[in-house]
Amino acid sequence: MENFNFYSPTEFVFGKGRAAETGSFVKKYGGTKVLIHYGGGSAVKSGLIGAVKKSLDEAGIAYCELGGVQPNPRDTLVYKGIDLCRSEGVDFILAVGGGSVIDSSKAIAAGVCYDGDFWDFFTGIAEVKNALPLAVVLTIAAAGSEGSRSCVITKEDGMLKRGIGYEILRSKFSIMDPALTQTLPAYQTACGCTDIMAHVFERYFTNTKEVEITDRLCEAVLLTMVKEAPRVIADPDNYDARANIMWAGMVAHNNIVGVGRQQDWNSHGLEHELSGLYDVAHGAGLAVIMPSWMQYVYKHNVLRFCQMATRVFGCQMNFENPEATAVEGIQRFRSFLHGIGMPINFAELGAKEEDIPALVEKLGIGDGKLGGFMELDKNDVTEIYRIAAHASL
Amino acid sequence: MENFNFYSPTEFVFGKGRAAETGSFVKKYGGTKVLIHYGGGSAVKSGLIGAVKKSLDEAGIAYCELGGVQPNPRDTLVYKGIDLCRSEGVDFILAVGGGSVIDSSKAIAAGVCYDGDFWDFFTGIAEVKNALPLAVVLTIAAAGSEGSRSCVITKEDGMLKRGIGYEILRSKFSIMDPALTQTLPAYQTACGCTDIMAHVFERYFTNTKEVEITDRLCEAVLLTMVKEAPRVIADPDNYDARANIMWAGMVAHNNIVGVGRQQDWNSHGLEHELSGLYDVAHGAGLAVIMPSWMQYVYKHNVLRFCQMATRVFGCQMNFENPEATAVEGIQRFRSFLHGIGMPINFAELGAKEEDIPALVEKLGIGDGKLGGFMELDKNDVTEIYRIAAHASL
Repeated sequence: MENFNFYSPTEFVFGKGRAAETGSFVKKYGGTKVLIHYGGGSAVKSGLIGAVKKSLDEAGIAYCELGGVQPNPRDTLVYKGIDLCRSEGVDFILAVGGGSVIDSSKAIAAGVCYDGDFWDFFTGIAEVKNALPLAVVLTIAAAGSEGSRSCVITKEDGMLKRGIGYEILRSKFSIMDPALTQTLPAYQTACGCTDIMAHVFERYFTNTKEVEITDRLCEAVLLTMVKEAPRVIADPDNYDARANIMWAGMVAHNNIVGVGRQQDWNSHGLEHELSGLYDVAHGAGLAVIMPSWMQYVYKHNVLRFCQMATRVFGCQMNFENPEATAVEGIQRFRSFLHGIGMPINFAELGAKEEDIPALVEKLGIGDGKLGGFMELDKNDVTEIYRIAAHASL
Repeated sequence: MENFNFYSPTEFVFGKGRAAETGSFVKKYGGTKVLIHYGGGSAVKSGLIGAVKKSLDEAGIAYCELGGVQPNPRDTLVYKGIDLCRSEGVDFILAVGGGSVIDSSKAIAAGVCYDGDFWDFFTGIAEVKNALPLAVVLTIAAAGSEGSRSCVITKEDGMLKRGIGYEILRSKFSIMDPALTQTLPAYQTACGCTDIMAHVFERYFTNTKEVEITDRLCEAVLLTMVKEAPRVIADPDNYDARANIMWAGMVAHNNIVGVGRQQDWNSHGLEHELSGLYDVAHGAGLAVIMPSWMQYVYKHNVLRFCQMATRVFGCQMNFENPEATAVEGIQRFRSFLHGIGMPINFAELGAKEEDIPALVEKLGIGDGKLGGFMELDKNDVTEIYRIAAHASL
């Protein structure tokens, strides 16, 4: 096991009706003037924004608001948010939404405290040293951003998608009411479930030996998703299934399932270019990329894929032909994703094979390699995109 | 799933050689005058206390010290610690040791900030509202107190063992170096492993339905212990096995494996009277009590015990006779504990059957019942102690 630090100081406030406590928690964490940041109109129409405002009013906390966050949140709105926070004297950011809203909020929180262009953080020119405190009222189980240190923003000029991670960007408190996710369309729910599983797999495939506790915790989240995701697609109002998925989404990404070892994250890298270019949902892109990545890399450690196949997808180990078990596990994962309504190849996603050179180019690997479970050069990623283009059940 | 809050703000600093960073972390968390609190001479002899002092010196942090914490830490030393902190102007407690030292430190941290008798917290007369910040350098994987809100102290007058839990008692940072545990005697190592598994089982046996994620996380820790505990007994210098166990011990008790549902804790209650009366190791007491508790209560939910038997102990499910599977799982747990060198009945523990009425009396149930997975009255706990007195493989 490698040395590590683990720090997840967010207070999670989980369960039905908890959004009514927003005001008292903002007060507890010192906010006096809040920016309520959200996405489209659904949070307004559902009455959630109204409930949050009521709760802030009751706690005597002032606020302003900024809606309009899109999936794959844009730098353009982040600039607007930073300006608004400065002109209004905001000292606390409240993200009401999913991963995109939270990430936009994190970028605003960091940008307000920085004199230069906040995009500097994403190009590596500057580091995040200060940020306004932020908190979350979560409306979709997916990104895990409510408990994570990460933040992904898309630069509209060129649709360049880039991510950062800082402890200071962790949410002070995150209100997680599974009932708020019951009205989500099935497709979005399934995208979220895929993202959650992907966050675990990025940590599961490692070259570090002997980290049994982290392996088992990974498998715990994956087994939960294998049980609960199809159930919630079949029965969208199932509160318990929603609750298990929502909590699994946090556990999948606050890094408790990743400590003590090297991680991968190449599927996320390859997917970012897809959703950057076509503006498709991140989870849908992952459903196409991740099993294809697995198909390409499994020979790097066949028995590790057998572990996934047997422990997570219930395959019988073929001791005479371990490779068959590894492949069966990958195929079961793809079938599972297809079963909850996810695309499994470029055509179903709306991507085009002829764009592969452009996708590879945007990854910016040059003559180098992407690090991770298996190092990938330009030819490797081209081949993975090709597998993704043609994948079938 | 039930509503819950989850808050685990401790910064975990895990791995080889990390104790050298103690000083810089104390500084980060605002300590200027530290009480170094520890147990017997082993922490001094091993050079750990010296290394910690060196690290504090390098960070320019003043300190005083108080050793002598015993297993089942006593109120008498807590009073001494409180006096010392007040006279020396201590503003930060550093526990260098295991669960007993950490719990003694927590009691001191709370007691310093309270005008009355600190034992008031344990009798319910007063609540802990303030506490000095505290941190941990861990030397044994067992109690999980390095990441938990709980604190158990024994009143020497009458050997009365009582526990409390407050968020404010969580450690600011906990340095966890598995290498520090490599010199532990096998018996203490095994006691720690038993305690870790017991912390999970107390949360695993619940009447709340449909909390798959918490079930699976419980099983992740238990499966890790089933693999690693015998390995570390056979090969005490195995760093990776030590590391997995040490991290499992934290995960087992910061409550991530307990959220969203009712918990039990009756085995801990019954054990506290045993180790209070005979001053035996807490883990050894649990090894005797917990399988006996399981044997008495399993009919309350046979299939839940089948889940443990099949998922954790690898039993084949007997679909024609589920009770046989439940009983087999319990018996495998007992055999497992015996295999790592734990006592399984009163004789092996050094307890006496004729003391059962006294043990029951000290529990203070009166005509009431202990709540939990299955409610227990006086007759129930008498029967559990009797099973524990006579248990065999």
